[in-house]
Amino acid sequence: MRRIGVLTSGGDAPGMNAAIRAVVRKANYHGVEVYGIYHGYEGFIQGKMELLDLGSVGGIIQRGGTKLYSSRCAKFKEQKYQLQGIEKMKDAGIEGLIVIGGDGSFRGAYALADLGLKCIGVPATIDNDVPGTEYTIGFDTALNTVVNAVDKIRDTATSHENTFIIEVMGRHSGNIALWSGLAAGAESIIIPEEPYDIDEIIARIKRGEARRKKHSIIIVAEGVMPASELARMLKEKSGIDMRITVLGHIQRGGSPSAYDRVMASRFGAFAVELLLEGKTRRAVGIKNNQLYDYDLQEIFKTEQKNTSGLYTLSKELSI
Amino acid sequence: MRRIGVLTSGGDAPGMNAAIRAVVRKANYHGVEVYGIYHGYEGFIQGKMELLDLGSVGGIIQRGGTKLYSSRCAKFKEQKYQLQGIEKMKDAGIEGLIVIGGDGSFRGAYALADLGLKCIGVPATIDNDVPGTEYTIGFDTALNTVVNAVDKIRDTATSHENTFIIEVMGRHSGNIALWSGLAAGAESIIIPEEPYDIDEIIARIKRGEARRKKHSIIIVAEGVMPASELARMLKEKSGIDMRITVLGHIQRGGSPSAYDRVMASRFGAFAVELLLEGKTRRAVGIKNNQLYDYDLQEIFKTEQKNTSGLYTLSKELSI
Amino acid sequence: MRRIGVLTSGGDAPGMNAAIRAVVRKANYHGVEVYGIYHGYEGFIQGKMELLDLGSVGGIIQRGGTKLYSSRCAKFKEQKYQLQGIEKMKDAGIEGLIVIGGDGSFRGAYALADLGLKCIGVPATIDNDVPGTEYTIGFDTALNTVVNAVDKIRDTATSHENTFIIEVMGRHSGNIALWSGLAAGAESIIIPEEPYDIDEIIARIKRGEARRKKHSIIIVAEGVMPASELARMLKEKSGIDMRITVLGHIQRGGSPSAYDRVMASRFGAFAVELLLEGKTRRAVGIKNNQLYDYDLQEIFKTEQKNTSGLYTLSKELSI
Amino acid sequence: MRRIGVLTSGGDAPGMNAAIRAVVRKANYHGVEVYGIYHGYEGFIQGKMELLDLGSVGGIIQRGGTKLYSSRCAKFKEQKYQLQGIEKMKDAGIEGLIVIGGDGSFRGAYALADLGLKCIGVPATIDNDVPGTEYTIGFDTALNTVVNAVDKIRDTATSHENTFIIEVMGRHSGNIALWSGLAAGAESIIIPEEPYDIDEIIARIKRGEARRKKHSIIIVAEGVMPASELARMLKEKSGIDMRITVLGHIQRGGSPSAYDRVMASRFGAFAVELLLEGKTRRAVGIKNNQLYDYDLQEIFKTEQKNTSGLYTLSKELSI
Repeated sequence: MRRIGVLTSGGDAPGMNAAIRAVVRKANYHGVEVYGIYHGYEGFIQGKMELLDLGSVGGIIQRGGTKLYSSRCAKFKEQKYQLQGIEKMKDAGIEGLIVIGGDGSFRGAYALADLGLKCIGVPATIDNDVPGTEYTIGFDTALNTVVNAVDKIRDTATSHENTFIIEVMGRHSGNIALWSGLAAGAESIIIPEEPYDIDEIIARIKRGEARRKKHSIIIVAEGVMPASELARMLKEKSGIDMRITVLGHIQRGGSPSAYDRVMASRFGAFAVELLLEGKTRRAVGIKNNQLYDYDLQEIFKTEQKNTSGLYTLSKELSI
Repeated sequence: MRRIGVLTSGGDAPGMNAAIRAVVRKANYHGVEVYGIYHGYEGFIQGKMELLDLGSVGGIIQRGGTKLYSSRCAKFKEQKYQLQGIEKMKDAGIEGLIVIGGDGSFRGAYALADLGLKCIGVPATIDNDVPGTEYTIGFDTALNTVVNAVDKIRDTATSHENTFIIEVMGRHSGNIALWSGLAAGAESIIIPEEPYDIDEIIARIKRGEARRKKHSIIIVAEGVMPASELARMLKEKSGIDMRITVLGHIQRGGSPSAYDRVMASRFGAFAVELLLEGKTRRAVGIKNNQLYDYDLQEIFKTEQKNTSGLYTLSKELSI
Repeated sequence: MRRIGVLTSGGDAPGMNAAIRAVVRKANYHGVEVYGIYHGYEGFIQGKMELLDLGSVGGIIQRGGTKLYSSRCAKFKEQKYQLQGIEKMKDAGIEGLIVIGGDGSFRGAYALADLGLKCIGVPATIDNDVPGTEYTIGFDTALNTVVNAVDKIRDTATSHENTFIIEVMGRHSGNIALWSGLAAGAESIIIPEEPYDIDEIIARIKRGEARRKKHSIIIVAEGVMPASELARMLKEKSGIDMRITVLGHIQRGGSPSAYDRVMASRFGAFAVELLLEGKTRRAVGIKNNQLYDYDLQEIFKTEQKNTSGLYTLSKELSI
Repeated sequence: MRRIGVLTSGGDAPGMNAAIRAVVRKANYHGVEVYGIYHGYEGFIQGKMELLDLGSVGGIIQRGGTKLYSSRCAKFKEQKYQLQGIEKMKDAGIEGLIVIGGDGSFRGAYALADLGLKCIGVPATIDNDVPGTEYTIGFDTALNTVVNAVDKIRDTATSHENTFIIEVMGRHSGNIALWSGLAAGAESIIIPEEPYDIDEIIARIKRGEARRKKHSIIIVAEGVMPASELARMLKEKSGIDMRITVLGHIQRGGSPSAYDRVMASRFGAFAVELLLEGKTRRAVGIKNNQLYDYDLQEIFKTEQKNTSGLYTLSKELSI
């Protein structure tokens, strides 16, 4: 293999740049050229790309977002556009493609691999919800952003003895809510994976009050319900006025944490190795702290992280 | 004067703890005892207080929120409760009171001073909108929090080439929006003090697009309109889909910045000096980098910071 | 078991407070009382302790350092003092002890367990070098502190096109140097576990210069040699003037990262479970993302983390 | 004026990029082209420059360091090189120059102005020690970096009950030491502008110990003496072992604070206005919160900031 391509796709995640850098440097180490494809599958279809040399990935390891831009590209689902993109790659002499993104992006890579382009997926999404891997790039940074925000809100909650509901990202996955809730010492955590009980949440608040602790933080994953809806339900049942904050897009940005930079470097370099070994339709994953690769097919399985251990712990520690 | 009281009232602001610390240490330096009154005017009415010694203000200079708690106390507007509180102070031997808060809190101090209790106000509110002083404790920290959040959102905006509307605090004052917008390089800033022009905002976005810059950040002060309303108006006129983020309560919290800690220390110590000189119904202020004191009556004037210089600058720099 | 004790010992690490909080809350959840023993083994010998209730561990999860203070206690190595401490515990009705610290602290716990006091160790040290566990509390926070500092220094290095040598903690372990170097994109990393080659370091700098990159960051673990010594050696051989920074004690402090807070919560709670199961002379560890417990004896083995994978990666990525 | 140049010189300071951006955008707003001159006076002599358009200063407002690089250029003191640079500027049609830097850089601008090139200085140095202006770009960011570092060290100092000496930047100026010491609640602050008294420092530590506060932070400006020297002196007189940390180059880097970005934007834009008004041999300054311009000659006066107010305050608050 002489020349490969790399693109980022779907929601951006901190650490994508560190992964791009690792792909370029590892490939260059082995004498392979790397082309950066812009705007995800959109640019893939149009053949919008540029040679990335060592200098062009200098000074990006610490930057949020993605230097290659990202997009959600609806028409890429049509095979004719997939074929058009593959043609563009062939014309440019690109023999393999590394796709950095979440499971939506991996579906695209799966389709391309089936059409003959060598493809490797690198899992990057703040939700940490890609089947087949224990970790996805960006999760740790997002967690720290959320925990930092909750720390700030707690200052205010404590000073005014208020109860706050904080809505965090996670449509189908409660990972951000659960980990950040545990790390921030939230009094209640509501996630898609576990049933919630309004009465228990209220009881928890009242129990705090009974021992003269008058502020409370509740963290809810957006996938369960909006914070405003939860506030309404709690108000109705308990009469307590809650304040709400929706953390929103700050969760996707920011300079990647040390952990995310290391993981992105490892994942990116490993993806290059897989391509060089001639592999395709594989994703980079980590299990038991060990890098490994698995069939992209696995993303079609609905697998949910087992959250029960941490969830139980969060309940025991917020008595 | 042998013994004074200190309380925090209204919305909390980073640096309130540093101000409390300065009051206690400066008073102790002069051999004066300080009582901390809990929960603002609420605790004042009930005489809920405690002696604060040097040790009790150790390790708080870097903490957000307020160790003395704060509250908004509706019934304090009635004179009978004001008199009740003054009685409690007399019983405890407290001869002067330092009130740390915004202009609402200063109105309370004004009333108490008229009823005979010596009162000094220390301006602390993230909005920097107290008449008579160029600075209020907490503004600088809030600015940094907002700018940091906008930086993160810009990562995502750039990666996806989106336009974002970010709603920041400021009901009657555009200070946070204007300063943070300038510091974060926002493309448009909308504040209560200046008229806005939807067409110009759209023109600015289009002008950026014309030179291949496809992301844009618009900052709006909550007092003008909600971000969602602005998004609707812009969508209607331009067809462009905007993403919105409401920064919310994170703006009040966090460890105070270096500047806020220094200002809080100066303001708090100066308030003690004023009490020791026998002054009352005065507020601490800063003008031209010089501490001074002024009649609390000034807060009844409606004075708006002159924002025109910075506002014009923001427009010139975001061509 | 009705009553247990907890202490922190040795160098402090961010997350120790989160671990103390978890111990108290988990124990309380099971109806067990917790006494906090102050100043590590020093306070153990003297029986300096206090009941920790839910309120007393409120608001500490986000704080660096340790609420229980720490110390290095030389005389604790003598058995008579160990026995004296055990006596104090018996007098206070304390039936089990949780020791939060590094391998030095674990040796103390080992000795106490042999003398009949039930002891469980919780690994907490920024060096991540405790035999038997893949992770120790504090490592992730220290990494982020170092990476953040290197990012700042790189601003200056880039602007002035200088080469910087940064000395980080790690007497026998290169974990901090290796991970932070990888995360910060350091050009060379020097650790105790791997031989270094001055000529290769110089070649690396020259190679960068050849492609017009005139700044360089070298990270050295304090255990290999001081930064000043390395600068001298490099200057002698290459004539290049290096600037040096010794990061020092900032590496131990700071609000714990999200990951450290979660790990500290898990470790602390698990330690309570072990005591409740009647176990002793065990340490909490994590392997393959799974909590487990192991004999404290293992710390006498000299085990070094296998750094070769990351080390090789760091070389390949800094071509 | 149709075309101007901008360069950064001397020690880099956070906010230099924001100032460059403001120069470019403000000039473009008035239809004036801006050339960025690389490597300070070094590049000036060689005519190393490039047109900066709006896009080229996009995404730099939040970056530390300087996009134009900086240097200390010894030979620039010789007039023949100054004349050579002026020739290069003439050849490129550059009619005015904006120099961003400290007083050393201003001396260069002064010389160039005398030789006929229109020059305006923009004060940027973390030391805040340029005569004629109350503020220099970078000071606020450096302060926050130092305060943040001291906060971390205090975690460790408190946990171990140690006394720490922290050496900060400031060869002739105690601004960083004084402001950061006040903001971090240091027990003693040693600066070039004020005499120090070893016995008083020791008395202060002992006084703390007497009321059971066993940790202490001493901040010393590098211009007074190295931290190691101070530790030796204190050890000799008191027997107390001190730990030392030299903060070093992290103080120059980092994303500029909100305040520094706003000031840099104002200073940069104002410098362009001055050039457009045909002024030369002037510097941008701020006094009483008002931008103004003053003769570059003023930098030859030895003026020291009046530190006595804050210094006295620091002593009163650290009783």
